Formats: sequence, structure tokens, C-alpha cells
Amino acid sequence: MSHAVYAPVDGATLAATLTALPAISERLGGKATDWRIREVGDGNLNLVFIVEGEAGGIVVKQALPYVRLVGDSWPLPLERSWFEYNALTEQARYAPRLTPQVFHFDREQAMIVMEYLHPHVIMRKGLIRGVEYPHFAADIAEFLAATLFNTSVLAGSAAEHKARVALFAPNIALCKITEDLVFTDPYREAPLNRWNRPWLDAQKQAFERDAALKAAAQARKYQFMTSAQALIHGDLHTGSIMLTSTDTRVIDPEFAFIGPIGFDVGAVLGNLLIAYFAQEGHEAAPRQRDSYREWIFDQVKAVWTGFHDRFLALWRDARGGDAYPASLFTSVEDRSAMEAERQRFMRVIFEDSLAFAGAKMIRRILGLAHVEDLESIANAERRAKCESKALQLGRQLLLEAKAFSDIAEVVGAARAIHGA
Amino acid sequence: MSHAVYAPVDGATLAATLTALPAISERLGGKATDWRIREVGDGNLNLVFIVEGEAGGIVVKQALPYVRLVGDSWPLPLERSWFEYNALTEQARYAPRLTPQVFHFDREQAMIVMEYLHPHVIMRKGLIRGVEYPHFAADIAEFLAATLFNTSVLAGSAAEHKARVALFAPNIALCKITEDLVFTDPYREAPLNRWNRPWLDAQKQAFERDAALKAAAQARKYQFMTSAQALIHGDLHTGSIMLTSTDTRVIDPEFAFIGPIGFDVGAVLGNLLIAYFAQEGHEAAPRQRDSYREWIFDQVKAVWTGFHDRFLALWRDARGGDAYPASLFTSVEDRSAMEAERQRFMRVIFEDSLAFAGAKMIRRILGLAHVEDLESIANAERRAKCESKALQLGRQLLLEAKAFSDIAEVVGAARAIHGA
Repeated sequence: MSHAVYAPVDGATLAATLTALPAISERLGGKATDWRIREVGDGNLNLVFIVEGEAGGIVVKQALPYVRLVGDSWPLPLERSWFEYNALTEQARYAPRLTPQVFHFDREQAMIVMEYLHPHVIMRKGLIRGVEYPHFAADIAEFLAATLFNTSVLAGSAAEHKARVALFAPNIALCKITEDLVFTDPYREAPLNRWNRPWLDAQKQAFERDAALKAAAQARKYQFMTSAQALIHGDLHTGSIMLTSTDTRVIDPEFAFIGPIGFDVGAVLGNLLIAYFAQEGHEAAPRQRDSYREWIFDQVKAVWTGFHDRFLALWRDARGGDAYPASLFTSVEDRSAMEAERQRFMRVIFEDSLAFAGAKMIRRILGLAHVEDLESIANAERRAKCESKALQLGRQLLLEAKAFSDIAEVVGAARAIHGA
Repeated sequence: MSHAVYAPVDGATLAATLTALPAISERLGGKATDWRIREVGDGNLNLVFIVEGEAGGIVVKQALPYVRLVGDSWPLPLERSWFEYNALTEQARYAPRLTPQVFHFDREQAMIVMEYLHPHVIMRKGLIRGVEYPHFAADIAEFLAATLFNTSVLAGSAAEHKARVALFAPNIALCKITEDLVFTDPYREAPLNRWNRPWLDAQKQAFERDAALKAAAQARKYQFMTSAQALIHGDLHTGSIMLTSTDTRVIDPEFAFIGPIGFDVGAVLGNLLIAYFAQEGHEAAPRQRDSYREWIFDQVKAVWTGFHDRFLALWRDARGGDAYPASLFTSVEDRSAMEAERQRFMRVIFEDSLAFAGAKMIRRILGLAHVEDLESIANAERRAKCESKALQLGRQLLLEAKAFSDIAEVVGAARAIHGA
């Protein structure tokens, strides 16, 4: 597989490719001719194959040199596979239970062979069906806290951090997608924008003219471009989470780079809040999904609270970070001042997370890439009602993040907009 | 010169080394045996030679593999010369009038051959003698605004910025010096700390026990380690400025990396404020230097105001930055919101600059590396009075940066401490 010129695999050639990898062949078991291979990539950027043999299954993910959603008019570096591989490796160090296992990586072919998650489903699909996942919030809170804390200078040395920064800095093209599609295009006329016409025409126009909102979006874009806090997943929406009732995994970190902590936290919160507003489009009768809406609210609260508490616990226990070295804070007064500083730090992360959540909600309704939670609502007018409410909350979060005193107030704001 | 194993040059071998460089030989003129060579490095880290021939002079700066101030027990990568060369090159693009011209760079030998600045003096020495430099404030304000704005995503693309980040990220060792010596060691017992004993013993102890101050210092260290705003000089004190009454140059950017804008601005302000408090140790009679003190205050105000106004002017005119793209802000309301956002941004830079200025003042009095402004005051008790006042203001700036509404209030605080 290695050192060959890049070529996209297909179902016909993949078995031969995998046969050359003894560990993979063994994992699949049986004869290569009996392996069942299907392409399942429903994402925007890559080929994804599930390969099953008599002993087990694997997933093969190969980058394509263009954006699949748009076509080959939009080239995209294969090298993103290298960043995904490095992110998966780093995340597995700190949240091994919550990432897919990587079996093989081929940089030339931009191909990662990894664990077949089964019977996991993409969380977004579960949210559409109204499925409750009892371990989701605790697991994602753990993933966020463990990966974001441990790849920061709160946990490690400046030298390690600068090495991480240099490793991921070349992931330029995927960061640029976020810079454009999340922070900029939804607020202007851009050829790739889509929205639910004509229902949202007025709201789209209002957003384009909302000077304060645009300034707020750009301030967050600036933060995204200049804040090197931790290795972030970079695309942690509910389509990047696969789970069952007992197991949770975070996949697809090809947007990873050293960025602001709140961007990952906000991605989870924003997508949960989209799912909340989408319920109205999925229920057979009004109020039918009231209890599921409450479950989503509980997840919003539990993800933030769980992340907050776990991140702080890791920080309080840390001894090896170059920032805020524990050796400097040994007296009772020191520890009290340091705890106040931690609370101040987490308050900023809270505001960051809300603002990024708002930006993520807006881009899914007025930008290029939409989400199934909303797209699967067949009646466009009914969908527009959900979308409009999500836009209202998104705007409020992005513009007034500092005004929310806690996560319960965020839930309260969503409830008020839903009921209005 | 290139591809040879690194070896420190000395006066005896340097002429032969330079003879191999035709452009340099020509610039010096005459016979190599007639070149006058003297080692003038009074800094902490490097060899510096002035070479003069009949046609002209040059400076040769070569990194040593250890910290000169401490000795070979403290190794330091030669590669810092590479970062200095790249920083000089980048700064010359945006502030060509204010940087020394580079004639030759040899990465193997960690050697930069550059313009001999003559009859320039190190500004710190001029400040000690009470010399006024009429162009200083405007020139340094221009240097700060031009280099910091133009190496940010306000001026350029995200791709350019990430390339800069990757280029300078390996300058780990010199950043680590700042992290330790500026932000950490002054606030704890560290073997390399020096202070004016016994006069400052109580103040040193008080700083070690000042929990809120330590938390503030660490918050600024965290910012130094994670804020990737612009290519900063990284060591922009008055010993890195050479000038005459008509010409100003910024030298020695070996600490350069992509860091917080306020760190450079604060370095200038903090060192001016140290010079202010040092005057009391240099005047022959009380109040003798009152007018020079006022001149320094004028510089503090003019540097900040000049930087602020010029940075904003560059920003208002910018069309090419990926952050806050001008195309997004075209209506009257847009431009008004964008101007408010610029003011908000500059307010944060102001607070950052004050806090970093405070940290820089403190480290020069309680840490390893001191400054001649104070060290040249022969009477230790008299010196301690100056140092103690500078420490008071440093503490106030670091701890309460947000409380200052403008630069005039900073000057007012310095005046109050001086007069107390």
C-alpha cells in the first residue's frame, strides 16, 4: 500500500490492497474473496468502506482530493488524512475508551484503516428518531475534558505544545473551510449558501444586515485563527459521534488543529440545541416529544457541567503543566487565588463555548452544509419554523454569550424561544 | 562559510571568514589585513563584532551554544540565529527604515552579517544619560504598528499566518527563557534570581507570597504561550533599540515568535517606566531631572498613542486580511459596528500591554537579568528606592491592568508612586 501513487480505492480493488496487510487480513479472517465490502460514506469529504470477514470487520477511510459534497471543482488536500491520523492517535492517549482504534495508516494513500464500530449509530440519526443514550453526556464530557485539558499547557510543557502547534499548523485547508463556512459565508451573499426558501429569506437578509452580529462572528473567527489553547477536534457535531446505549466514540477529527477549547464544546452544545428545535418537525402531534426535548436539555446541561467539573478536576490534580505550575501555589492563600483563577478561566471557556455554539447553529441553516436533523423534515414550512427558532437562539448565543450566567439560562432561552 | 561545522569566530579568524564573501569584502573595502575588528557583545547571549574597513563597516553577530550571561552550564540552541534572521527579514518588509539591513546569513555558523549602525547608541544608555530623542516615540510606534499589524490575520491570509506559526514554533528555548524568567522565577525562590539585598528582601518575599499577583502573572504566561496574534519581537526593551537624534532601529529579535501583540508594546512601555524611576538614582540633586522625567512620560504616552492610532489606521485601510474581511462591512451600520469592534480590540491590547509591561518591570528587579538603568546606580540604598517604586507600579500594572482607563492614568500612577 505504501509508496504507491495515490489512487482512490473502490470495492473491486480494496480487497487486494488489504490482503497485503497481514494484521488486517487476520483481523478480517477467511478468504479475501469472501469479504463483504460496502461504501458507506455519507459525509462530505471522503470515501468510507466497511469490510467484513468471517472473523471481524474494519473500516477503511480514504480522503478524496476534492470536497465530495461539492465535486472536483473544490480541491482539498489529501494531507488532511495525516492530521486526522495524528489527532486520532493523540486523542486515544487521553480518551482511549472514546475513540476508534486505528489499525493502519497509509500517508501516500491518505487512508486510515480502523475499528468497525458496530452496532453504533451516528448520534444525529438517533436524535432524529428520539433515542435516549444514557452514557452520552458523561462520555462526551470526558472526551472533551480529557483531550482538551491534556493537549494544553495546563497539562504539558511548552515544548510539547509548540511541537503540537507546528505539527497541525499545516492543516490550513480544513481550517479555512471553517473560517469561511462557519464564520463568514452565512453572513453574506455567497454562491454556496443554502437556506429554506422562501421561508427564511427575510431572516437570511436580516443576518446579512446585522452589523453587530457580523462583528461578533468575526471576533470569534479571529479567536479561532489565533487562539492556540489545545488540540481541538474541530468538527465535533453529533455526526462525528457514534454510539450505542453503552458505548460512545468520537470519529472524524480531520479538522483538528491547535485552537480554542470552546470551539469543540460549543460544537456539541450547538448541535444538541439544533436537535432540540428539530424535534417539532419530527413529532407526530404537538408536545409528543416533550419528554425527549427535556432529555436533550438534560444533555446540554450535563455535557457542560460534566466537562466543566472534569476539566477542573484534571487541572486541580495536574503537576506537569508549564502554565500555572503547581509549585508556585502552595499556601492556603495561593490555592485560593489559584482556584479563583481557574473559575475565571472556565467562565471564559463557557462564554467561548456559547458563542461558538451559536455560530455553529447559524451556519447549519444559512450556510453550505446543513444537517439531517432539519433537512429530514419534509414539510418546508414546518422545517422553517424549527430553523427560525434555532437561528434566534444561535444569534443570541453568538451576540450575547457574556449575558448568560450559567447553562440553565441557555436552556431557559431555548425553552422561551420554542414556546414563543 | 556555509556547510562547515559550527565554530565560534574570534578576531583572528573572522577576517578570513569574511574575505570569502565578496559582497562583504567590497562593502568593507581595502585589504583584509587592514580591517579593524572588535568584539563588542555586551548582551547576554551572543558574540558581536564590529568590522571596519576603509569603505565601511559591518556587524557580525554569532550565536553561542550557551547563555553567555550564565556560562556553558546553560546550553541554548544555535538555531535562534535562524529565527532572528527570519524575524529581521519579515520586520524589514514592513518597517524597512527601522531595522538593520542584513547582508548575509549563515545558518550553520549561526551568524548574521548586518549593517553597522553608527553613530547609534543603545537607547538604554541614552536614557541613563538623560538624552532626549525627538524621533524615538513616533519611530517605535511605527515599528510596533507596522510589524504587529502586518504579521497578523488582520492584514494577511490564514495560510500565511499558519506558515508563520509553523516557522517560528520551534523557537522553543528562547520562549522558555521568557516563560521562566519573566513570568515565573521572580515570584518564587529560584537559584538565578538576584535582587538588591538586603533592601528589597521584604518586597521580594511579599511578591513570593502575593497569591493574586502570582495568579495574574501566570494568566499572562498562559496568554504568552497560547496567543498567536502576530510575529512579535519578543524582547523589545530599550537595549534592543539603537538610535540617534534622527534615526531609530530595532535589533536582536532572536526571541521572535507568533505571540501576543501586547507583549512587544508592553516591553517598550515597561522599560520606559523603569527608566523613569531610575532617574532619581542618576540626578546630581533632587528634581534635577524633572524635565527629563516629563520627557519620558511624554514618550510613554506618545508610544502608546502612536501605536494605537497607526495600528487602527492600518486596519481601517486593510483589504486583504482573512479576519474581519472588509467586504463584510459595507453599510453605514456595518462600518460603525466594525469601528466599535476595533476599539474593543484595541482596548484589550491596551490592557495586555500594561500587564506585560508590569511583568517586564518586575523581572528586571527580582529576576535573573537586570538592567543598566538601575544597576548603574552605585549607591545600593538609593538604587533600592528606585527599584521599590518600579516594583510598585509593575505590580499595579500586572494586577490591575483593566482598571486603567487610558495611558494618562498610567503616567499618573507612576507620578504618584514617584512622589509618595
